Amino acid sequence: MKFCDQCGAAVRLSIPAGDHLPRYVCEACSTIHYRNPRIVVGCVPEHEGRILLCRRAIEPRRGFWTVPAGFMENNETLQQAAARESQEEAQAEVTIGSLLSVVHVLHAEQVHVFFRARLPAARYAPGAESLEVGLVAPADIPWADLAFPSTEFTLHRYLEDKAGGSEPYHFTTIDRRLTRTPGS
Amino acid sequence: MKFCDQCGAAVRLSIPAGDHLPRYVCEACSTIHYRNPRIVVGCVPEHEGRILLCRRAIEPRRGFWTVPAGFMENNETLQQAAARESQEEAQAEVTIGSLLSVVHVLHAEQVHVFFRARLPAARYAPGAESLEVGLVAPADIPWADLAFPSTEFTLHRYLEDKAGGSEPYHFTTIDRRLTRTPGS
Repeated sequence: MKFCDQCGAAVRLSIPAGDHLPRYVCEACSTIHYRNPRIVVGCVPEHEGRILLCRRAIEPRRGFWTVPAGFMENNETLQQAAARESQEEAQAEVTIGSLLSVVHVLHAEQVHVFFRARLPAARYAPGAESLEVGLVAPADIPWADLAFPSTEFTLHRYLEDKAGGSEPYHFTTIDRRLTRTPGS
Repeated sequence: MKFCDQCGAAVRLSIPAGDHLPRYVCEACSTIHYRNPRIVVGCVPEHEGRILLCRRAIEPRRGFWTVPAGFMENNETLQQAAARESQEEAQAEVTIGSLLSVVHVLHAEQVHVFFRARLPAARYAPGAESLEVGLVAPADIPWADLAFPSTEFTLHRYLEDKAGGSEPYHFTTIDRRLTRTPGS
């Protein structure tokens, strides 16, 4: 951030009075610009034991596999966002179920939220952001070609929980700055 | 938003190619500025059957009661944010527990997330954003003077779950544009 989105003047990083973190502050109109994590929402749609996966047509991680997921918009719920992303990325009408995982992706300044979901009919096709989509048996999940660590975490928990016959939620934190080298 | 925070030129609302919603797009550098819900995180800290409440010293809803809560920052987890807000608003060291509620506050473009929490020692004092803080028995909760509908929803679920001896999570959606007149 270089300029104030309210008045167009330059912003400067400084700690406002009473605050404890540096913020982008406008030198002209004094607006304080807070920057907060964005929410990414997705789901694990299942149809008769197989899971709907999408191969990404866009960066980051073009060509890698993921479950349907994307940025939450204003004026929608998490569940509506998860269903919308399944429609957009896989042209799939899903029924959103229980909360599955919450992943703090610190290096990306994002919180990823995933739900269990059902795909009642095996109807799906690539949306604009997918190269291909398909129903994949658990044994055939392309673990080495998944797009994101949060996808991997979420699919592992989904399968474990299903084997165990329960539907708990899971929190985890991923910080690639500490634990992984930056991706492509 | 009136100006591009990258180059300072004017922005215009338009639907980018391949998108389905209007975005603020920079006419000079073509940056697309997405606007997404912000996350507010809080907790219900309990000490020996009483709940820690704060009376707000700041707008909105100055003078009304709430549980410790505030905007999630980058580089922290939801649980860390909830503990930090308890420290900042009530100078209270809490232990964050299970997920209690997720409230989609559509009119505010926010998602509120609350956790159960324990306050091991009855040590607390008003932080800069609180007029007073105190441990309140369930029978004494000032329901008519709570700051936000999400606080009210969360405290009701907390007490019901405690009576029932379980710790489920709860989703709800609040849209004041549809169901309430705007507050002060």
